[in-house]
Amino acid sequence: MRAFSILCLLASTAVAIPSPKISSVRRPGHRGPNRRDIVTNQVNTTAASPTITASKDNIWASLTNDEAADVIAYLHNQTDLNLTSVEDAGPWDNTIMVVDLLVPNKTDALSYMDGNGTKPERWVLASLLFGATEEPYAQDWVVGPVPTTEETVYYPYTYGSQAKDAKIRVFDQDDHSELYANASMEIKDIISDILNATIETQDDLSSTFDIWGIDPLWHQPDENGNDRVISWVGFWRYPDTVQMQNGSINFDGETLLPQGLYLQCDITGRDPSKWGLMGVLYGDEYYSSLQDFRSAWEQPGFEKYAVNYGGDWIGTDQAGEVLPLEEIAPPMPVQPAGQRFKVDEENKYIEWMDFTFYLTFTRDTGMRLYDIKYKGQRIIYELGLQEAVAHYAGNDPVQSGTAYLDTYYGFGPYAFSQIPGFDMPLYAYCMNTTFHASELSKSHRCGISIFEADQNYLIQRHSNADYISATKNIALTVRSVSTVGNYDYNFEYIFYLDGSIETVVRASGYIQSAYYAKNSEYGYQIHDALAGSMHDHSLNFKVDFDILGTQNTVVKHVIEAKDIKYKWNNLTRSTMHMYRTEVTSEDHGKMNWSANSQEQVVIVNKDVPNKYGEPRGYKIMPSRGGAGMHLTIKNSSNLINSQGFADHAYYVTKRKDSELRASSAWNDYDTANPLVDFNKFFDGDNLEQEDIVMWFNLGMHHVPHTGDLPNTVFSTAQSGMIITPHNYLLSDPSRQATQQIRIDYTDNSTTDVYTFGSQPVTGDIELAQVAWDPYTYYGDVAVRKFPYDPQNPFNDTESIV
Amino acid sequence: MRAFSILCLLASTAVAIPSPKISSVRRPGHRGPNRRDIVTNQVNTTAASPTITASKDNIWASLTNDEAADVIAYLHNQTDLNLTSVEDAGPWDNTIMVVDLLVPNKTDALSYMDGNGTKPERWVLASLLFGATEEPYAQDWVVGPVPTTEETVYYPYTYGSQAKDAKIRVFDQDDHSELYANASMEIKDIISDILNATIETQDDLSSTFDIWGIDPLWHQPDENGNDRVISWVGFWRYPDTVQMQNGSINFDGETLLPQGLYLQCDITGRDPSKWGLMGVLYGDEYYSSLQDFRSAWEQPGFEKYAVNYGGDWIGTDQAGEVLPLEEIAPPMPVQPAGQRFKVDEENKYIEWMDFTFYLTFTRDTGMRLYDIKYKGQRIIYELGLQEAVAHYAGNDPVQSGTAYLDTYYGFGPYAFSQIPGFDMPLYAYCMNTTFHASELSKSHRCGISIFEADQNYLIQRHSNADYISATKNIALTVRSVSTVGNYDYNFEYIFYLDGSIETVVRASGYIQSAYYAKNSEYGYQIHDALAGSMHDHSLNFKVDFDILGTQNTVVKHVIEAKDIKYKWNNLTRSTMHMYRTEVTSEDHGKMNWSANSQEQVVIVNKDVPNKYGEPRGYKIMPSRGGAGMHLTIKNSSNLINSQGFADHAYYVTKRKDSELRASSAWNDYDTANPLVDFNKFFDGDNLEQEDIVMWFNLGMHHVPHTGDLPNTVFSTAQSGMIITPHNYLLSDPSRQATQQIRIDYTDNSTTDVYTFGSQPVTGDIELAQVAWDPYTYYGDVAVRKFPYDPQNPFNDTESIV
Repeated sequence: MRAFSILCLLASTAVAIPSPKISSVRRPGHRGPNRRDIVTNQVNTTAASPTITASKDNIWASLTNDEAADVIAYLHNQTDLNLTSVEDAGPWDNTIMVVDLLVPNKTDALSYMDGNGTKPERWVLASLLFGATEEPYAQDWVVGPVPTTEETVYYPYTYGSQAKDAKIRVFDQDDHSELYANASMEIKDIISDILNATIETQDDLSSTFDIWGIDPLWHQPDENGNDRVISWVGFWRYPDTVQMQNGSINFDGETLLPQGLYLQCDITGRDPSKWGLMGVLYGDEYYSSLQDFRSAWEQPGFEKYAVNYGGDWIGTDQAGEVLPLEEIAPPMPVQPAGQRFKVDEENKYIEWMDFTFYLTFTRDTGMRLYDIKYKGQRIIYELGLQEAVAHYAGNDPVQSGTAYLDTYYGFGPYAFSQIPGFDMPLYAYCMNTTFHASELSKSHRCGISIFEADQNYLIQRHSNADYISATKNIALTVRSVSTVGNYDYNFEYIFYLDGSIETVVRASGYIQSAYYAKNSEYGYQIHDALAGSMHDHSLNFKVDFDILGTQNTVVKHVIEAKDIKYKWNNLTRSTMHMYRTEVTSEDHGKMNWSANSQEQVVIVNKDVPNKYGEPRGYKIMPSRGGAGMHLTIKNSSNLINSQGFADHAYYVTKRKDSELRASSAWNDYDTANPLVDFNKFFDGDNLEQEDIVMWFNLGMHHVPHTGDLPNTVFSTAQSGMIITPHNYLLSDPSRQATQQIRIDYTDNSTTDVYTFGSQPVTGDIELAQVAWDPYTYYGDVAVRKFPYDPQNPFNDTESIV
Repeated sequence: MRAFSILCLLASTAVAIPSPKISSVRRPGHRGPNRRDIVTNQVNTTAASPTITASKDNIWASLTNDEAADVIAYLHNQTDLNLTSVEDAGPWDNTIMVVDLLVPNKTDALSYMDGNGTKPERWVLASLLFGATEEPYAQDWVVGPVPTTEETVYYPYTYGSQAKDAKIRVFDQDDHSELYANASMEIKDIISDILNATIETQDDLSSTFDIWGIDPLWHQPDENGNDRVISWVGFWRYPDTVQMQNGSINFDGETLLPQGLYLQCDITGRDPSKWGLMGVLYGDEYYSSLQDFRSAWEQPGFEKYAVNYGGDWIGTDQAGEVLPLEEIAPPMPVQPAGQRFKVDEENKYIEWMDFTFYLTFTRDTGMRLYDIKYKGQRIIYELGLQEAVAHYAGNDPVQSGTAYLDTYYGFGPYAFSQIPGFDMPLYAYCMNTTFHASELSKSHRCGISIFEADQNYLIQRHSNADYISATKNIALTVRSVSTVGNYDYNFEYIFYLDGSIETVVRASGYIQSAYYAKNSEYGYQIHDALAGSMHDHSLNFKVDFDILGTQNTVVKHVIEAKDIKYKWNNLTRSTMHMYRTEVTSEDHGKMNWSANSQEQVVIVNKDVPNKYGEPRGYKIMPSRGGAGMHLTIKNSSNLINSQGFADHAYYVTKRKDSELRASSAWNDYDTANPLVDFNKFFDGDNLEQEDIVMWFNLGMHHVPHTGDLPNTVFSTAQSGMIITPHNYLLSDPSRQATQQIRIDYTDNSTTDVYTFGSQPVTGDIELAQVAWDPYTYYGDVAVRKFPYDPQNPFNDTESIV
């Protein structure tokens, strides 16, 4: 579920406030007033964490709190924008949604990083919401440079958008909750009956049911051909409140409690008097008015369906028989000799073995990596999530109409603090992350964890009758976990000793489920009145390869069966061979992984062959969860022109500063007319020895079954992609590792043992020392931006729902 | 490389002995005479390892040493078999190659395991080699019951073979090394010139070059249409001997040193006078006689190519710059509170959480699992490797003619002892394994390791503004590593808390490479005169599902894009749905994984729906290394009728006691006329609610690049398949785990923490205590079987080459 909460709806019935669906850009005033003195950039660096100073500053670093405050104040000074502070704004005001760094143009960046070029200026991408108009819209603006001076300018971000003036229409600027509530109250007796509730007052309604629905909104022409904006909402039951020792919680399982009742409303325009109910759906029967519904209900023989109630089954706590020996402490990773990588905390710069890279963090897409170098040579300029779509289907309009574009909600806001010993080993290095939305800067304590771990299998091994040789597979993981509503996405980048980098995404958390009635074509019945709602996850990642420079080519090395007549044999042989084919133009830039994986996809610099004449390169291939998946639906009625990044397994385009991202956070507002239309990136550009970008999808086809209750498990809902050196070096670099052994033996005895200088572990590990007190877990830290109040950060952990 | 060693060839020039290519069935007399008192069933069970007694005996257990000795003595008493003891045999004798358990018929097994049925008798499958004939052959025999009595019978294993009388012709019964040596000595001046060597004597030749080639052998008709047996051999240079502190070793990199010179010989029949050289290949030029080759060589302008020499580059020791902080001890897994699973060592029976299973071990295929139960219900009757093919291609006949069927060499013989702290965590439980070949019983100390490990990511997680819930992903791994010649195959089965079982195979070790000259269509040049030789690995596994009984059906739940008109919308919607299709007959039993993974493949018992009417089942899907791969070549000239198990991704057949394995170890002797022809399993049997078996392939398409030097790394050469409960239980069973945490918080503080009885780790881990002394590493233990000499086991670690 990604819908706005009833709490917010209730607030908005009292005071009209702008209510975009996302809490991270929602007016935060309803949050409690508790504030404490907390350092927003607190880290848990210990004396044992080796440090380093990056030779160049992190030019992709998130806006600082001061920078964000500066640009927000600057924008408020621009009278033509007619901005109102978020704190004071209503739906008919113009407000600032998000400010984030506009990354420097790549040529400027490389000039600084690689030579003596000046450090690029800091520019800002500001997303503004224009409510003071009959046709509200969002618009992206460029502001810079910052810190603001008299030189600072601002203008629409037209070069980074395929939409006119970088504008996108907003059709849900106003709050429609009263519409749904009023319609519901008209049939409160029916609701009480069919949903087995006691609804007398609007308070009863709002304390029993959460009413929300399709995302994105639909458009359809009326009989005169005029565009109408359609909303379908469904009823969801609130889980019971569970009293705990010192507080109470509600398990977050509301998305397991659909009630099977749906309302269709026309919410076109900004005049509430023009809005109205269009229909009702219950038990797969459609009624075009409340009256029709009532008439049917009054008939004897009206079929009532079962109801979903909360209860223990939606809780995630330990349940069922405790298994033999399970309670005793299980195996755990320890780091006996301290951290083996170096961090420049200020620059979020990491050095591990022969890899170096910078980290940054954005509101839209969370953690990102820049300037990944291996053995001193850049291999990737930029690596990070672009967009995540979760596309549902069902016999009811709410499931059918759900196709979340999750960067709308943002991965940054929900990259909550990780739990030591659970989300990461106890010894992990923690990095805080910050984003700026709704004129509030928030920091996640330990939003990113960085740690080495033994991968539980070797990286190299060989044995024979005389000796055995084995090398440990120690890898570095950089992890961030974002809970976007019901789902927890675990993102990680894993660096290996052979020069490989793996991108992995896993999903846990609650499924968004469907009502069971007549839904069998779209999922399994999994509880009393519940069906798993089939959906596809497609998560698009950008990888801007720079293999030995920016001039690269994608080459497929294809393995193919072939009958061949050789000069050394009279008979034709049925064998195989390999041929090469280049992806020469964006006209051929949309691709799927080959059947039986017979295509090797290699990114090379053709101008830089190795000493044997082979172009040096990196191969990219799916690594976990089967082949990299993409959407089943090619032309979704929900996503329209906003699914271009998800209809193939991977894409190659020519890199352009004007094509920074495959999607926009605001495409969800009007998917037919997106701010960023990925399809338009494909305009026939040459791809041979150009600065190219690959965009690949990870994902899962998910038809939830009973095993998804109460939560989906990460272990089977994962997808990975690995890039690996391919004729890049002259031999396997893991041979540099000293964490290997060679044992020579005869039938009589072990004769020689070599450990290559690797230092044996010594001493004791005091488990009490490495233990962690869960009572020290805190959520996020927020700092008010307008008016700027940096001396008063406050705890503020906020989730969707 | 899987070829026999020059040492053996030299021995065989002195004394004629039978020399099948496999060392595990080769006369072991040439091994050193050193014997020590070693307990062959030694285990490292410590007081900390909880034990259990299986309620039923392991009826699939390998033959004991006594059983093997008994049956071998029994066979020697059968005068019609005319057997000679391996110790005394020559190529014109009949010998025993292998004795192994013939598993009980499944109905008998289930009668015992599930009820009050008597324990099945022990029967033996004996593979005999009949050399005392002009047309030597191997033949499988059934012998039993054992212990032998007057009731014991023996007869050909015809019901388990598609070959007449369970016989397969053997075309390399005799040693042909003299043929190659003599031909080589005729051109010793040319060899000395083009391969840059000093070959004066046959000793020079045999100490400089290893001469071996295609596998399996070829057949082709001569001008009269008579079948001729063709061998192609290539020259490989021996690696240099490296003097160590207390001994010397040769790095096992001979397969990186092809010399580019190939000899073609006619080796038809058993009369060496009829054998002869047919041709020579050098520099992609074919010469039909040594004279033609000499004439060409004598021409000015004869093109000589570069030579591959050994050196440091083929060594796997630490090499190159030591990376920053790399020498200090890395993170490692520890087991602070002892082992959390129980073992019945005698029965090789394991209980971990809600899983129980039996292990066994065979000469052909190594580790196998039987009777895997989950929550008291059998889900898999049998799980294990069937066959592994490594199919090469190239412009030279040796690479083109290589298609190893590795069970011929056997995975059992080379499942060497694992290294604590490397192949397995220091705390792993070790199980010994035994096999019986060439009248010798050998035991691998720690041939199987069993251990729990934290998977470095959670199995479950959800967080919101009020709480966070997280569960550790602790899994049990059962591992065996077999080094079959140049490659080290890491096999493992991983059991998860959600009821899933993953099968993973990884490959490290040395590639078999190709000579570089004119080979670019088949691989990359990777060293001075070296090309990676492209090849496919396809490893077939049998999984005999018994989901709630033996009557099961494979159903595909297919996700499909579809345009649908709903009653609640005037417009047709472009969406998706799911449909189901059953695999009803063996006529449709050969399948590939679907594009974009849109088919979910589920094994269900249709007669046992859950309370919501959904059949309970297990889903099977590729988990690592992209989609499960199979051979590129469909009708290999090398494999002919012996590749049926490898031309699709997976197969379903009706289970039969007569179709125990997808392949036979001896198919390699005559691939056109295999003992087991997997294709013949598909004879139209019904598959709906039958006892069905799935046979799936794991594998890799491997085009070795420079990163494969000196060894291929496990991290990118891996493939996995996972089976996972699918509507099998009513909710996720990982909720039973206490190794989880829930932290409740407000903006102010953490209010409640729940750890569900999981016991915190306490005390210290003394690293010195968990350390392991590599000087205690020993190889295998052997016991002579005929004459039986159980009191004198001796160390005997033997590898191919």
